[in-house]
Amino acid sequence: MDGPCPTSFIRLATELAELSGAIIRRYFRTPVAVETKADTSPVTAADREAEAAMRERIETAYPDHGVIGEEFGPARADAEYVWVLDPIDGTKSFISGKPLFGTLIGLVHDGAPILGVIDHPALGERWIGARGEQSTFNGAPAKVRPCPGLGEAILFATSPQMFEGANADAFDRLCRDVKYPLFGTDCYGYGLLASGFADLVVEAKLRPYDFCALVPVVEGAGGVITDWQGAPLNLASDGRVIAAGDRRTHGECLKVLG
Amino acid sequence: MDGPCPTSFIRLATELAELSGAIIRRYFRTPVAVETKADTSPVTAADREAEAAMRERIETAYPDHGVIGEEFGPARADAEYVWVLDPIDGTKSFISGKPLFGTLIGLVHDGAPILGVIDHPALGERWIGARGEQSTFNGAPAKVRPCPGLGEAILFATSPQMFEGANADAFDRLCRDVKYPLFGTDCYGYGLLASGFADLVVEAKLRPYDFCALVPVVEGAGGVITDWQGAPLNLASDGRVIAAGDRRTHGECLKVLG
Repeated sequence: MDGPCPTSFIRLATELAELSGAIIRRYFRTPVAVETKADTSPVTAADREAEAAMRERIETAYPDHGVIGEEFGPARADAEYVWVLDPIDGTKSFISGKPLFGTLIGLVHDGAPILGVIDHPALGERWIGARGEQSTFNGAPAKVRPCPGLGEAILFATSPQMFEGANADAFDRLCRDVKYPLFGTDCYGYGLLASGFADLVVEAKLRPYDFCALVPVVEGAGGVITDWQGAPLNLASDGRVIAAGDRRTHGECLKVLG
Repeated sequence: MDGPCPTSFIRLATELAELSGAIIRRYFRTPVAVETKADTSPVTAADREAEAAMRERIETAYPDHGVIGEEFGPARADAEYVWVLDPIDGTKSFISGKPLFGTLIGLVHDGAPILGVIDHPALGERWIGARGEQSTFNGAPAKVRPCPGLGEAILFATSPQMFEGANADAFDRLCRDVKYPLFGTDCYGYGLLASGFADLVVEAKLRPYDFCALVPVVEGAGGVITDWQGAPLNLASDGRVIAAGDRRTHGECLKVLG
């Protein structure tokens, strides 16, 4: 499929965001138990219930579609269409009362992201991107802003501690070259970039459920999002991501990280 | 004055937050011009107008009180009562569309903070602390939570780049000892700590207008806030701050940073 993303899929993605958001809001800032997963990241009943509700809805609507989710793993991952879900991107923010965490709902066709929702249930803010359409923020057009180069760029990353070894050295160089490096954004940073409030998001160690939903949002707002070699993101990408509102900033960033 | 903070001062501080919040919301996520100050930090018309409006209101109500503000400097700074104002703590967040920036309104009596407001106009969230009273969050009691030690602690800091030299080494050690270090909080982190969602905030290079308002909020919620030597904060403090919800965590933190 190279044409626009079918409207029925966009409708379902919006329903999923409503469904998960209602569950997550019920748990936010309550004394929910926090478990620690094998990778030392936290998880709560909110993550699990939100993902389970979304999977059930997808399986009812499109039983032949695949699903990959952060909490319950892959099902039919070799299907033509695969939904890629992170019920709470930024669980550490969620458990510490910070409202910037988000729900990521992506749809991948033959491995390429064609639909993405970045939903912030505690803020009432939602970005939607779909191939062939202008991205939206709460229903209004979302557009990146121009940025002539790194020296003028506001850079977001969730934490400098996402980077290790050579990646950390590269990220340090980048921090020195940009105007302001700012932290703690989770997926919110990609939404703000799509709306033209920031210029660059650079991260590492992301999993497909962390980045698949971002791609259509950033691209549909006029931005560019790739791996650190400048290649398109897909289910097999290595988890190092650059998003930029302006191709010139993206090009300079690739050189610094390369 | 060792008794409780007079109600009339708390009422004025609330009025100041309403006043500044209305101005700041008018500018948030609009294409406001960003200037760079001598210290390389950004400033906008929103910062200046909000501070000017608060100063005018204070001078009308209490012409003998002093005022120290981030944007317009000190006036009558040797007065018995001095208001200490940061119209936008987190201007970098403000200009990049992140709603966690806040307005800090402090009142110092003979050098000691006795009243503080942490107001987040883009989120509609406000913490108030006054000597002799329980701190509040949007009118409801705000209370810290217990945390037995660093290994269980969620730590906030605005950016690891606030620390240099020996401070950076100390902060790195601390990051390894806590459960999760999280970034990008500006003054919001102190509010979340006062509400029992996090356990520790450690920062450096703060100015009096960055920390005076925090003290009554954190203390009135049952927490402890000091410099890195464990001494109370006042107008002469060196800008290195530890806030903790639990004295045990505070004690362990002092040892790691010392």
